[in-house]
Amino acid sequence: MKNTLDGIEEILLMGPGPSCIHDSVYEALSLKILGHMDSYFIKIMDDVKELLQTVMKTQNNMTIPISGTGSSGMETCFVNLIERGDPVLILINGVFGKRMQDVASRLGADVDVLEFEWGTPVVPEKVREQLSAKDYKIIALVHAETSTGVRNPAQEIGELLKGTDSLFLLDTVTSLGGMKVATDDWGVDALYSGTQKCLSCPPGLAPVSFSENALEVILNRKTKVPNWYLDVSMLTKYWEGQSRVYHHTAPINMIYGLYQALYLIVEEGLESVFERHYRYHKLLVEGLEELGIKMLVDPEYRLPMLNSIHIPDGANDGEVRGKLRSDHKIEIGAGLGPLAGKIWRIGLMGHTAREENVHRFLEALKAVLER
Amino acid sequence: MKNTLDGIEEILLMGPGPSCIHDSVYEALSLKILGHMDSYFIKIMDDVKELLQTVMKTQNNMTIPISGTGSSGMETCFVNLIERGDPVLILINGVFGKRMQDVASRLGADVDVLEFEWGTPVVPEKVREQLSAKDYKIIALVHAETSTGVRNPAQEIGELLKGTDSLFLLDTVTSLGGMKVATDDWGVDALYSGTQKCLSCPPGLAPVSFSENALEVILNRKTKVPNWYLDVSMLTKYWEGQSRVYHHTAPINMIYGLYQALYLIVEEGLESVFERHYRYHKLLVEGLEELGIKMLVDPEYRLPMLNSIHIPDGANDGEVRGKLRSDHKIEIGAGLGPLAGKIWRIGLMGHTAREENVHRFLEALKAVLER
Repeated sequence: MKNTLDGIEEILLMGPGPSCIHDSVYEALSLKILGHMDSYFIKIMDDVKELLQTVMKTQNNMTIPISGTGSSGMETCFVNLIERGDPVLILINGVFGKRMQDVASRLGADVDVLEFEWGTPVVPEKVREQLSAKDYKIIALVHAETSTGVRNPAQEIGELLKGTDSLFLLDTVTSLGGMKVATDDWGVDALYSGTQKCLSCPPGLAPVSFSENALEVILNRKTKVPNWYLDVSMLTKYWEGQSRVYHHTAPINMIYGLYQALYLIVEEGLESVFERHYRYHKLLVEGLEELGIKMLVDPEYRLPMLNSIHIPDGANDGEVRGKLRSDHKIEIGAGLGPLAGKIWRIGLMGHTAREENVHRFLEALKAVLER
Repeated sequence: MKNTLDGIEEILLMGPGPSCIHDSVYEALSLKILGHMDSYFIKIMDDVKELLQTVMKTQNNMTIPISGTGSSGMETCFVNLIERGDPVLILINGVFGKRMQDVASRLGADVDVLEFEWGTPVVPEKVREQLSAKDYKIIALVHAETSTGVRNPAQEIGELLKGTDSLFLLDTVTSLGGMKVATDDWGVDALYSGTQKCLSCPPGLAPVSFSENALEVILNRKTKVPNWYLDVSMLTKYWEGQSRVYHHTAPINMIYGLYQALYLIVEEGLESVFERHYRYHKLLVEGLEELGIKMLVDPEYRLPMLNSIHIPDGANDGEVRGKLRSDHKIEIGAGLGPLAGKIWRIGLMGHTAREENVHRFLEALKAVLER
């Protein structure tokens, strides 16, 4: 019987995630499995919490990986905080803001949105105007909009909310581990991320963090969380305290992988990791500009880890991506939604953000475009 | 900086799951990551679907692994099928039937339950009576009740529902891959499982399958599924068809692991795998009886893969389990709910179900009890 796994090749992942994985993370994934109630596994869980707190810059006790991919982190934040009819404001300038709107609407929230042009950032002044017109329980923002490569002003939105009763919900799927995310300083109440971007662990877990204010809202709900699997009040009993209460069987080996991925980041040093992302982002942009390729986003709002570029005139979108994959073993990302066929998304996330990868990609792109 | 992963020991997992993992599955977990839209990864997805169809004995096209642990499979089945006020009947004789009740109630279903004594099976005659008194949209049953070790009469309940409009929802978390599960023949409309029991893959995925009838109900919902992450109508667009639509980033390496775990089962042959589980279950029961230990469940309702035994008089629950773990590197399961402190649960799931493991466990238990 033929085994399909035998045909897996090593691909340089320079799309919007997943990113390349360090050998030691692969090794961690395949360490011997322990039981989910085993005392040594609980020690690993505790250490994962602590590493996440470091990377997220938070003291929040409820800082854990949810047992699902990044989008399950989005679902977790909204489903625990929203009760039917709650007023929620969502700031949208890309696919992942739109996804937030869909998630919150399905949960029966009274959703208002402020939309901004894709490729440009959310404008704090517009948000301030909206907040003076209406009170919201939750204001939700995507920090790093993966669909466009725009950095949104998370700190500034956080400042607007300080001293109010509104909760600040922040998507850091693409930013966490690649640029500064200051959960506590920015006043973030609910934060989620994914493992397959700048943390450079395979997809499958969604780190989340909830402030004390957010937990108080959750514990004082009038109705039960309409999602047993993601109910934070039950998850805390498994992730905290002296005697742990079984909720669901944690994804043991994925948690080993996340531990190791976080370990590498903390060992290298957060600031060094951010600086490395920024350095190779600059190198990439320089190289692209030499090829005459234009960036989608203005310099001051560009993400270092996700570089959106206009597809050059005359280049065929699918053909170029196909040749990069087949002839050069490099994956880059297509455009999404209104940007499909118009841009490519070049990821420099986590372990992918290395000098040799930038050079390899630029040479390959040049070769493919010149043919 | 000390690395906590360095302290992981190899433990013989003879609890209620996770089970022991075959070396080739560990290797699969650490194969090079591909993108979630990569054409070769899509081939692996297609092959995983086919292997799942074989193991589940179904032609259902919508047969995929959900990106979460077994309980997310439960959530998926209920959240896609239930709209507020829908009448649902849940058959309960253990923790996982109770969990179904909680999940369905949170979603606003009109939930009725039939409860049976823990350690005994669901009685089809009682179900028949209830069905003649009231029509239900969904009847939900746990095939293998992991909290007690009881096999429930799934085929018989399926027979009762044939020719009715009711949907049959079946939990096969512990049974799939260890005993017969005949999805199509039994008339199951929605089925979920987990990877960490008899499939012997680490936890992190929930194989599910939906019949055409179930899909029709889902596609004709009056309201959107109140869970974006688990919405089957969107998941199908990623898992089916010529051009795949991105939903969320699939847990790539876990899917490699599941492929390999299913590959091993299909290669050994389903019937051989079931026979192996039964053979070592018999060997275990014989050995336990020689030690004077009594089984909780009557022989005809016993699960081969999950053996509940009365804690012998004079033995200290936590102390015995602790010594097995520390001195013999063996994990067994504690009792849950009303059976806590009264039973132990000895798993013989998947790769754990081998002769040497039965002998090693019996010798270790004898040594610990004799001290």
